[in-house]
Amino acid sequence: MEVVLMAQKKMILDLDTGIDDAMAIAYAVADPDVDLIGIIGSYGNVYVEDGVQNSLKILELLGATDVPVYQGLAHSSESDHFDRMPVSAQIHGENGIGDVDLPTPARKPETGDAIDFFIDAVKKYGKDLILVPTGPLTNLDAAIKKAPEIADEIGNVTLMGGAVTVPGNVTNVAEANIQQDASAANNVFRKVPLTQVGLDVTLRTLLTKKETQQWRDLGTKSGRAFADIVDYYIKAYEVTSPDLHGCALHDPFAVGVAINPDFVSTISLNMYVTTDEKYYGRTTGDPARLSDPNPNVKVAVNADVDAYLKAFMSHLTGLFQQN
Amino acid sequence: MEVVLMAQKKMILDLDTGIDDAMAIAYAVADPDVDLIGIIGSYGNVYVEDGVQNSLKILELLGATDVPVYQGLAHSSESDHFDRMPVSAQIHGENGIGDVDLPTPARKPETGDAIDFFIDAVKKYGKDLILVPTGPLTNLDAAIKKAPEIADEIGNVTLMGGAVTVPGNVTNVAEANIQQDASAANNVFRKVPLTQVGLDVTLRTLLTKKETQQWRDLGTKSGRAFADIVDYYIKAYEVTSPDLHGCALHDPFAVGVAINPDFVSTISLNMYVTTDEKYYGRTTGDPARLSDPNPNVKVAVNADVDAYLKAFMSHLTGLFQQN
Repeated sequence: MEVVLMAQKKMILDLDTGIDDAMAIAYAVADPDVDLIGIIGSYGNVYVEDGVQNSLKILELLGATDVPVYQGLAHSSESDHFDRMPVSAQIHGENGIGDVDLPTPARKPETGDAIDFFIDAVKKYGKDLILVPTGPLTNLDAAIKKAPEIADEIGNVTLMGGAVTVPGNVTNVAEANIQQDASAANNVFRKVPLTQVGLDVTLRTLLTKKETQQWRDLGTKSGRAFADIVDYYIKAYEVTSPDLHGCALHDPFAVGVAINPDFVSTISLNMYVTTDEKYYGRTTGDPARLSDPNPNVKVAVNADVDAYLKAFMSHLTGLFQQN
Repeated sequence: MEVVLMAQKKMILDLDTGIDDAMAIAYAVADPDVDLIGIIGSYGNVYVEDGVQNSLKILELLGATDVPVYQGLAHSSESDHFDRMPVSAQIHGENGIGDVDLPTPARKPETGDAIDFFIDAVKKYGKDLILVPTGPLTNLDAAIKKAPEIADEIGNVTLMGGAVTVPGNVTNVAEANIQQDASAANNVFRKVPLTQVGLDVTLRTLLTKKETQQWRDLGTKSGRAFADIVDYYIKAYEVTSPDLHGCALHDPFAVGVAINPDFVSTISLNMYVTTDEKYYGRTTGDPARLSDPNPNVKVAVNADVDAYLKAFMSHLTGLFQQN
């Protein structure tokens, strides 16, 4: 009798942690098909240093202290600094994780270069590596500028960002992650085989206090902490997006889709990102390359919401039960 | 032995004729599955009076003098007049049909009201009626304001207009037909079951002088005239859209899709049209209704270009052979 074991998939998260980024970490830690080999910190929802600390705190809360966290680039490729938007504190809390006070983590950030860590991982794992960027695409852009060959060597880049068939959340045309660094995004969208998990689908995956109450009821440290953190996010959504009746699972949906593409239906498109001031950060099809074969981007346009939410709750609740 | 005859489908075209509108008329006249019961004239590519005359001229050229042409509304629902854009003359010619001089048509425009003609046709044919608007949605909007019940009674509205996954052709977000009257379009997009054939797919269906030469070589009056008319359009595209290497079959593609939905793949979406000045005329998904079941719009996002072009050439060349 032969037993065939499905190998876990190597995954790197590139996060600006952030409440939904924290849920993305939990999903990746909980999913038995994922081997989370590292986290790269980005800026966006928070300053990069705070995002790195938040990632380390969440990993410790979840008992995943074996995951290295690298500090990535601190600002857009088009700028020399980053100013956090006031709305980011409104949505994610001053500290980025719902103003919930988690212990200072024992593990420190890695001292190595984040971009080199990612390039080396592509060289080592090739098509077996999954990258999930859920913040600006600054780190990925820097990596493909430093080592252009990796654009074709990496197996799977599934990003949370952009909006194609729906309006943006910063302007009518721009989603926040892409809008942080449209120039970097434009380079990535033109060169890397991508699956785009944008607002088109993430605004359909909604979590409510009914679900966070299930975590709280577990009575565990992580269950209570995640219930508090995500309730902050749900309250913010009641103010910023009262139509939705819940909070959007932006970043953890990208992790889910990276592992199970069947959670979404996609269209194939050659794309670019608008860098003109007036329509800055719009992710859209490139009219000049509409008829080119083999488009490099799969745009998620619809979601199997029930299947995803079932997996999401099963993974996170199972993980919170143990920690 | 039983012979089952497929009934022809009743079709009304709502046109601002226009070179690609002229090809839409030819497609509808040529397709054996279509019973073209009337044309409503709109403004846009040309003034409404000129569009009506052009429709009558094209019908006479094609031997289809039994088709009544009604003059619809002359300007946007938001305005009291219409100024033709200079670029319209550049693309369609001063007279709207490539500055080709066709004889004054014997048939006159109908004296009845265009909006009433359409409402009455919906009442008479219901689900068996197809409407194909290839200009502004002003006439359709006026009809559903006058007789709101027809929004649910009509079987099939397949429009050429808008752009969802690609940039617009008037601004980054706006396509010309929708941009003429975004307020009317917003009303239509929210209320009527639609198939949207926008720039997403019409920029993929390209015609070149190779094809128009086939029409010219027929040696018939209509073959020569259409070759001249469409060559004007192809030359304009060489200036305005040199990347495309051909002219886009916007309006005749909508007629093809109305009869044969398999020419495109679609996504289902609840939509609206932006009427804010900055993003005026953008056709996009409505975040507040993303999770509502049974979206009313099917957005064409990819095209079976080869199959459509084959049908297009077969229909038009066959028709030109006889006239």
